[in-house]
Amino acid sequence: MEKQKNILDYDTVALDEAQDAVIIIDQTLLPGKIELIALHTAQEMWDAIYLLKVRGAPAIGVAAALGIYLLANRIETEDFEEFYQKFTEYKEYLDSSRPTAVNLSWALKRMDAVAVKAGREEHKTVAKVKEILHDEALQIRAEDVEVCRKIGEFGLELVKPGDGILTHCNAGQLATVKYGTATAPIYLGQERGYNFHVFADETRPLLQGARLTAFELHSAGVDVTLICDNMSASVMSKGWVQAVFVGCDRVAANGDTANKIGTSVVAAVAKQYGVPVYICAPTSTIDMATATGADICIEQRKAEEVTEMWYKERMAPEGVKVYNPAFDVTDHELIAGIVTEYGVARAPYTESLKEIMERKAQRG
Amino acid sequence: MEKQKNILDYDTVALDEAQDAVIIIDQTLLPGKIELIALHTAQEMWDAIYLLKVRGAPAIGVAAALGIYLLANRIETEDFEEFYQKFTEYKEYLDSSRPTAVNLSWALKRMDAVAVKAGREEHKTVAKVKEILHDEALQIRAEDVEVCRKIGEFGLELVKPGDGILTHCNAGQLATVKYGTATAPIYLGQERGYNFHVFADETRPLLQGARLTAFELHSAGVDVTLICDNMSASVMSKGWVQAVFVGCDRVAANGDTANKIGTSVVAAVAKQYGVPVYICAPTSTIDMATATGADICIEQRKAEEVTEMWYKERMAPEGVKVYNPAFDVTDHELIAGIVTEYGVARAPYTESLKEIMERKAQRG
Repeated sequence: MEKQKNILDYDTVALDEAQDAVIIIDQTLLPGKIELIALHTAQEMWDAIYLLKVRGAPAIGVAAALGIYLLANRIETEDFEEFYQKFTEYKEYLDSSRPTAVNLSWALKRMDAVAVKAGREEHKTVAKVKEILHDEALQIRAEDVEVCRKIGEFGLELVKPGDGILTHCNAGQLATVKYGTATAPIYLGQERGYNFHVFADETRPLLQGARLTAFELHSAGVDVTLICDNMSASVMSKGWVQAVFVGCDRVAANGDTANKIGTSVVAAVAKQYGVPVYICAPTSTIDMATATGADICIEQRKAEEVTEMWYKERMAPEGVKVYNPAFDVTDHELIAGIVTEYGVARAPYTESLKEIMERKAQRG
Repeated sequence: MEKQKNILDYDTVALDEAQDAVIIIDQTLLPGKIELIALHTAQEMWDAIYLLKVRGAPAIGVAAALGIYLLANRIETEDFEEFYQKFTEYKEYLDSSRPTAVNLSWALKRMDAVAVKAGREEHKTVAKVKEILHDEALQIRAEDVEVCRKIGEFGLELVKPGDGILTHCNAGQLATVKYGTATAPIYLGQERGYNFHVFADETRPLLQGARLTAFELHSAGVDVTLICDNMSASVMSKGWVQAVFVGCDRVAANGDTANKIGTSVVAAVAKQYGVPVYICAPTSTIDMATATGADICIEQRKAEEVTEMWYKERMAPEGVKVYNPAFDVTDHELIAGIVTEYGVARAPYTESLKEIMERKAQRG
């Protein structure tokens, strides 16, 4: 591995108009290799999301927004309805790449809405609709940076200099365009000399914590210690952790939160040791149309991720059954606060999340 | 991997007098390959324990007992004190191979006690002392089989046919001479048509659950599903688990239990979902001289187990700190029962464990 390279110098997701492509860091190659890849076709975009080359709910949303713009831009017709039919096909195809993160469908819906408004309601030309889609995609990307910075500011108020912070999976810069969500308070604290001690869960089966979070925090000079997922109780029992910050893929209206598998394990352990759990959630991940965690669809992934991704040889017996959910739901009762770009929601979440969304509607 | 071989047809630890060696299954090669290896020298025995070729507290105890007998048998002198000085050196050397499991030192102390009694108190010849050590080592091995069978019987009374059982690490046949401790109720239930559904935590970093538990249970025809350690909350939240059975490396007088890292995570999660946690503990792992879990020494292992044991290439950034404790302590308040060969101890453990040990002293 090359020394001194800093992952924070790269963009996680960007639009390259000259190349007619979405440029991403291929996260499946980290931490060994930083490689930028160009996504041209719809299938390349779908695969990149499905295969976790780009991952993290906010980054997926931005990638989908930039991607659907590029695909729309190539549709050769001046008839809006013909354009829109093809656009819808692309949109539904990209939307099928992963089911749990709400940002994917949120970004695509937002792109869909501006297309419908411009083309069908305002009767703008297809060329103009494409221009509007271009601006909207870049706006989604710019907002992501701003949202993460604000989450960092609100999150930082919940901790003190010298605190120990545990995080699970990667809700870092690599999961967003910049700053990350769960890592935003850490990066802002780092700039301000807070000297946090961060524990990064490795996050089986795909090891995003070891490969991505430990990598980006270490690269940024943060004091980070890698642990296996089953060591959280050990570090918390020693009083080394004052707060848990994690990201999320979808927050239900009652505060139940779907996030990377194992988050609800961390939350149960944190409850046992009296450590507050904070969910860092851009409002784009809050889904008021989903009443509770029980209504969230949990993606199930293939067994080989669990049985074969070590040593390049099989590490579990042939034929053994495997249960491999990509996410779990953390009950709202285990959550001390939900940190959004409009402030920190506290229990009861049915009320506080509604208020946050109203605040957003007023300012938006 | 060869089909149809059944790990249960092999002895985990055995004495081969013709070969002058302890024969073990090299568990670091499982599940890909079942290879029996012969341990001749003290260093081979020490390495086999340190490198986890033989692991599981009861199996380590048996291996050490058989090993110290072989080493003692080769000491060439007829003077007991000279014999005993060399014996003590071997004993202390073997005892230094792993610090947490009490069975290792328990077995060696027991061998030491019979040597001292026969040689120093009863003035038996060195040849006779060697014979007594031989019998004691085989007795320790035979008792292990009987103890596990009894734990299985008592454990089986705590569950119903069709129940879901979650286990962590490997307290299976491979951790003992036969039956295992945490798996003993499962194997007995299997013989009696209980149709348990077992969830095996893979158990990072060394994956004993995936490599060993899933392997031996699947090999024995048990319905076993492999999960990552961070999926326990997911399966428990669905009501799929009625009991947790785990082994232990050392139980303190107040019931606090040291076991494979992650056990206390499972226990906190089980508490959250109302699932009882049973520790399967041969009385040889109950250490009345250790007051609480805080007094148990926890082995720390090297970082590379966490950072390098996938893909044959490094999966975490160079230079990142790693915390890698081999065990954690589960607070007695999280334990529903401690299943021993003399019955099930319940809270308050300071009293019930004392009673179990008295029962043992009376029958022993």
